Amino acid sequence: TGIKKPFTEVIKANIGDAHAMGQRPITFLRQVVALCTYPDLLDSPSFPEDAKNRARRILQGCGGNSLGSYSASQGVNCIREDVAAYIERRDGGVPADPDNIYLTTGASDGIAAILKLLVSGGGKTRTGVMIPIPQYPLYSAAISELDAIQVNYYLDEENCWALDVNELGRSLNEAKTYCNPKVLCIINPGNPTGQVQSRQCIEDVIHFAWEEKLFLLADEVYQDNVYSEGCQFHSFKKILYEMGPEYYNNVELASFHSTSKGYMGECGYRGGYMEVINLHPEIKGQLVKLLSVRLCPPVSGQAAMDIVVNPPVPEEESYVQFIKEKESVLNDLAKKAKLTEDLFNQVPGIHCNPLQGAMYAFPRIFIPSKAIEAAKGNKMAPDMFYCMKLLEETGICVVPGSGFGQREGSYHFRMTILPPVEKLKILLEKVKDFHIKFLEEYA
Amino acid sequence: TGIKKPFTEVIKANIGDAHAMGQRPITFLRQVVALCTYPDLLDSPSFPEDAKNRARRILQGCGGNSLGSYSASQGVNCIREDVAAYIERRDGGVPADPDNIYLTTGASDGIAAILKLLVSGGGKTRTGVMIPIPQYPLYSAAISELDAIQVNYYLDEENCWALDVNELGRSLNEAKTYCNPKVLCIINPGNPTGQVQSRQCIEDVIHFAWEEKLFLLADEVYQDNVYSEGCQFHSFKKILYEMGPEYYNNVELASFHSTSKGYMGECGYRGGYMEVINLHPEIKGQLVKLLSVRLCPPVSGQAAMDIVVNPPVPEEESYVQFIKEKESVLNDLAKKAKLTEDLFNQVPGIHCNPLQGAMYAFPRIFIPSKAIEAAKGNKMAPDMFYCMKLLEETGICVVPGSGFGQREGSYHFRMTILPPVEKLKILLEKVKDFHIKFLEEYA
Repeated sequence: TGIKKPFTEVIKANIGDAHAMGQRPITFLRQVVALCTYPDLLDSPSFPEDAKNRARRILQGCGGNSLGSYSASQGVNCIREDVAAYIERRDGGVPADPDNIYLTTGASDGIAAILKLLVSGGGKTRTGVMIPIPQYPLYSAAISELDAIQVNYYLDEENCWALDVNELGRSLNEAKTYCNPKVLCIINPGNPTGQVQSRQCIEDVIHFAWEEKLFLLADEVYQDNVYSEGCQFHSFKKILYEMGPEYYNNVELASFHSTSKGYMGECGYRGGYMEVINLHPEIKGQLVKLLSVRLCPPVSGQAAMDIVVNPPVPEEESYVQFIKEKESVLNDLAKKAKLTEDLFNQVPGIHCNPLQGAMYAFPRIFIPSKAIEAAKGNKMAPDMFYCMKLLEETGICVVPGSGFGQREGSYHFRMTILPPVEKLKILLEKVKDFHIKFLEEYA
Repeated sequence: TGIKKPFTEVIKANIGDAHAMGQRPITFLRQVVALCTYPDLLDSPSFPEDAKNRARRILQGCGGNSLGSYSASQGVNCIREDVAAYIERRDGGVPADPDNIYLTTGASDGIAAILKLLVSGGGKTRTGVMIPIPQYPLYSAAISELDAIQVNYYLDEENCWALDVNELGRSLNEAKTYCNPKVLCIINPGNPTGQVQSRQCIEDVIHFAWEEKLFLLADEVYQDNVYSEGCQFHSFKKILYEMGPEYYNNVELASFHSTSKGYMGECGYRGGYMEVINLHPEIKGQLVKLLSVRLCPPVSGQAAMDIVVNPPVPEEESYVQFIKEKESVLNDLAKKAKLTEDLFNQVPGIHCNPLQGAMYAFPRIFIPSKAIEAAKGNKMAPDMFYCMKLLEETGICVVPGSGFGQREGSYHFRMTILPPVEKLKILLEKVKDFHIKFLEEYA
């Protein structure tokens, strides 16, 4: 209503909110959570036995067999056991201890808690936290809230946003002159940049952290979202183990996962977990105390997390449907990743690295100097000006690169690839037309 | 296993976790949440139409009609509308604006957020936060975490734990000499003390806050838990309104509610809301920013909150069962409140104020000087020593008064009245026997 717009709907390609973009929930996950919610359904013939077994097991782990009881602050015991078993399977048998697993209110809650813990231990110089640029803004917000120092290391756009360990060294050495760098944050697969780290790269990072005694914080919430040929997700935990006891017994690591991304996209449940390795027992005590203030993570979110780590197996009746649903989502995402890369790279003045993983494109956009002037006149960052224009003219909502950080003088935006394939095609065509027009207008 | 104990089970009377103590969920609430979780059930004849209508309405408010989407940070719009309508009904028509409602992850999340907001605005002197003694330890923990100053005002044990406004004045004047007191926290009905504030008392407190320009923080999570003859819950919001525009347009107030207590006891869902009045628009902006870091409260918890504020009405088919279940829980609690008070007051050396509301007894216990000596020898607070002995000898787990704060030289413990009636009777007899034996042992 009000002023007439040149489009009929706003497409929110700004946040990784799969269900909001029309993705359907995984049936099995919702069946189990519904059974836990309303256990009368355990007598219903319309629910499969494997879902009922999962629900019974979860409820047995809850006080009074109810999702309505507080769990332990660390999470329901049997769900932590399932998480540990999942990690062992995922990492080819590398042992995982349920005592090191903490269920969280989404991954962001765990990340904020660990950062708080590590920063609050600081001495007279302020704690430095190394983060990639571009980064997911949760990090910069948490660091600023904790009054810690954000230490930037730049991902290499020319090399598919790879992490270069020499750049880590440069960043760290510079930081040591003005703060006490203690934490190294990694996002793999990358958000917003979508790169998937190679095994070699992870080894280099771990060696660096070991040498410099940095606490490694591995944000691995996109571990199921890997699309490019030749790319594979390697967990930091697994590589750390394989590098031998000198590393595995010394490097402190917290890694994070979530119900919100992957193929399930259950953001609203606020489910997540972290695995913490080599944490000093005293610090571990402080972590438990810190977590106990918020009583417990939502128990229905814990139940959803359980199904992510303990899905149907081939012998079970729900397996075929589960795999079909899971692969449908992931195949579509892979298709959309390729489509997006290809189309963006056809547009003059847009360069887009391969979307190896996660669920975002982060193309580099050329903004002509006349447009930069116009942005200045509007007191806006040039990429914000670009994104506002895009929204006004097409109804497409994306996030300017300045919200994530980027090298001075380069401009980007982040766009999710979550809209359904046909809708995404239309969206990409619209961005293309807009961009060409924008270049002409400010030539 | 291990050392043989003189009891067969541990009774956890230490936390307000109703379902863990055997209380059954409210059927209607769980039906609606199950329908939202697994919308295929909307076609099932075994769910009532009124529950289906609630579920459809909630799902329409969710992105992609899914509980798995992020909601706005402030919460799902239609649920905030239902909260506002509930407040208006509860307060006899006093207007409530959905824009002032924020859904939260349990009440504790909202309380922590508001305190953070108010404390971070501080100048050169540290911010003082006034809290009742005894208090619920969330307050002391949040205040200490924020590096603010805890300013104690004492509730009057001789007068059924009433809040005396003269004591507020004493406390404030003292505090002004060493900090900048900005916030006054009230817990009504009281936790751990169970008092229900009179209308006159609330008026006095509001007048005091107005005069002293204090931000009022009203923790009203036990608003449905009122038992004593002649006691009634009055919301701070309502009284503030009725005191006229001079008060209503000026006093800043945040009030809190939750799914965890009342008759529903849904702690695990981490549902809650706060209503914020007269917040400066700039501070409101900071609040939204602060809340957006954690993305959104769990959407299933928001759905549970919706049913608490929008239960079946007399015309609806689920009404009769709903009322029966609700009253069964509340009548049992009232019975147990009286039983507990009566039995404790029969024991020499125990004095227990009436449990007017909430779900705890906080009896004063006489601890003989010999026992105080023994506690010192064990490096324990005397009431901690008492509670440890109680646990070891009876398996009953209660919390020492020192965890909540108490006047120097007085000793208490907090015990929930959540066990089923017959079990509670046995529990109280055991405490009685233990106490008599304890007095003899340390005579």
